[in-house]
Amino acid sequence: MEKIGYLGPKGTFTHDAALIRTKETNDQLVEYDSIQELIYAVAEGEVSESVVPIENAMEGTVNLTIDILVHEVNLNIIKELVIPIQHCLMARNGVKMEDIKRVLSHPQALAQCRKFLDSCLKNVQRDATQSTAAAAVLVRDSELPWAAIANLRAAHIYGLKILKEGIQDHNGNSTRFVVISNKEAQRTGRDKTTLAFTVDHKPGSLFRALKIFADMNINLTKIESRPMRTLLGQYLFLVDLEGHKDDTVVKEALEQLYKQCKFFKILGSYPRFYSKE
Amino acid sequence: MEKIGYLGPKGTFTHDAALIRTKETNDQLVEYDSIQELIYAVAEGEVSESVVPIENAMEGTVNLTIDILVHEVNLNIIKELVIPIQHCLMARNGVKMEDIKRVLSHPQALAQCRKFLDSCLKNVQRDATQSTAAAAVLVRDSELPWAAIANLRAAHIYGLKILKEGIQDHNGNSTRFVVISNKEAQRTGRDKTTLAFTVDHKPGSLFRALKIFADMNINLTKIESRPMRTLLGQYLFLVDLEGHKDDTVVKEALEQLYKQCKFFKILGSYPRFYSKE
Repeated sequence: MEKIGYLGPKGTFTHDAALIRTKETNDQLVEYDSIQELIYAVAEGEVSESVVPIENAMEGTVNLTIDILVHEVNLNIIKELVIPIQHCLMARNGVKMEDIKRVLSHPQALAQCRKFLDSCLKNVQRDATQSTAAAAVLVRDSELPWAAIANLRAAHIYGLKILKEGIQDHNGNSTRFVVISNKEAQRTGRDKTTLAFTVDHKPGSLFRALKIFADMNINLTKIESRPMRTLLGQYLFLVDLEGHKDDTVVKEALEQLYKQCKFFKILGSYPRFYSKE
Repeated sequence: MEKIGYLGPKGTFTHDAALIRTKETNDQLVEYDSIQELIYAVAEGEVSESVVPIENAMEGTVNLTIDILVHEVNLNIIKELVIPIQHCLMARNGVKMEDIKRVLSHPQALAQCRKFLDSCLKNVQRDATQSTAAAAVLVRDSELPWAAIANLRAAHIYGLKILKEGIQDHNGNSTRFVVISNKEAQRTGRDKTTLAFTVDHKPGSLFRALKIFADMNINLTKIESRPMRTLLGQYLFLVDLEGHKDDTVVKEALEQLYKQCKFFKILGSYPRFYSKE
C-alpha cells in the first residue's frame, strides 16, 4: 500500500478530493498542514502522490501551488479532480435553527453564504476559523448552541446534524485539484496537458506561440498569464490543451513551441475530468 | 465633495487602497461590507466611485468582482492601484514577543507568515479572524498578551505597537485594486484597457481573436480564460492591453474583435499603474 498526501484537517473540501483518489487506489492518506510540505513530500519520496488544490480553492492559495510546480520541483500532474462547493449548516444534536447564537466557518465560506445568513440567521454573530472543518470541531466541542458552515463529510466525521444543505448563494462554484507524482500518466485517448512557458513582453509574442496550436488544430481549454518575477520583461503563460504530450501532433507542437521560449515546462499530461453525476 | 465606497473594516489592505484614491480626490470614504454592495452603490449613485479588489486579494473573492462587472452592471474601470502585501506583528503597549500567548489574523495572512510563526512563535496558538483588521480590534480589546498580524495602518488606527515588520514568508506578493465609476477616464497616452469577450470552444478561436492585436502591434499585458456558465461551450476571456479604447489603432482592433464575438464588453480604459517608490 502506498501513501497519498493531502492538506489537512479532515473534513474539508481538500479531504473530499483526496478520498476520491484513495477510493481508486486503496492507498493510505497522510495529512500535511501546508501546500509546500504536501508537494515536497512527493519530491522527497515520503508519499507516492499528493492531492493539491490548484484553482479557486477555499483553503490555501493556489498561486502557491503553481509557483512550486513551475519553479521548485520536477513532478507530474497525473490526474485532475473537480469538487463542487456545497456548504451545509450544522450543529450538535437537538440544536434547532432558531436556537443558534453563533455561526463559525472559514471567511470565504461565510462570504459564500452571506445571503442565506442575512435572511435566516440575521442577527447571529459570525466568526472566522482557519478552515471549514475547524469550525465543525469547535461546534462539536462547545456546549453552547453554535453552528458551523462546512461540508457533508465534516458533519459525518464530527458527529454533527445537518440543519440545511446547499446554503451557498451561488451554485456552480467548484475547486479543482490535481494529483502530483514522480511518475507519468499513461495516454487514455481523452487527455489534457498542462504547460508553462514564457514569451517576450512585446506585441505578437503570445500570438506566435498560439499560432502553433491553431495550425495543428489543438484546442486550448485554459490560458492564464502572469508576470515572471525572476525574468524581468517576461510573461509566464499557463496553458491547458486537449491531448497527451505523447500524441504525435501534440508532441510536434510542443517541440516547435519549446524552440520559441526562454522558459518551457510541461507540468503533466493526464485524463480529462468527467463528473460521474 | 463626492463619496467613495470601499470594503470595510478600516485598517485592511483594501482600506489602504481607498485612502490612496481619496488623497488624490479629497473625497469622503464610505464603508461597505461586501463586494456586491460596494459595486451596486456606484451603479445606484449612492457613491461616485468604489475601490474594489480585483486580483490576488486577501479579503474577498476576486472572481466575484469580475463576475459582477462583466455580467451585472455597466460601469467603467477608471484607475488601477497595486498594493504590496506587507504584514506586521503587533500587540498592545508593553507586550513583548516572548509574552505572546495567541496570534490572530485572517487565515490567508496566517498562511503567508507561516515560516515566521514557526520559527519565532513556535508553540503559540493561532486563530482565524474575518479580516486582518478584525484581529487588531480583538487584540486591542483583550487584556491578555495576544498579537495580531495586520498592516501598518491597522496598528496606527487601533493603537497597537509593531513588534516586527515585514513578516511575510515571500516578498513580491501584492493585491490589485480598481476604481470603478459611471464616468470614463480620459486618455493620458500611457493607458491600459480591460475587456471581456467570448470565443467558441474550438481550435484556433482564441488565436484568430489575438491575431487582430498582433497584426496591429498592440501588446497584451494579461490574458485569462474561464468557462462561461451562462453560454455552454463558450469561454470568457479577460484581456488587458496597452492603449486607450479611443486610440485610433485600439479602436479599430476592438471593432474587428467585436464582430467575431458572441459576447464582448469593454470594462474600461485607464492610466497604467506606476509605483512611486
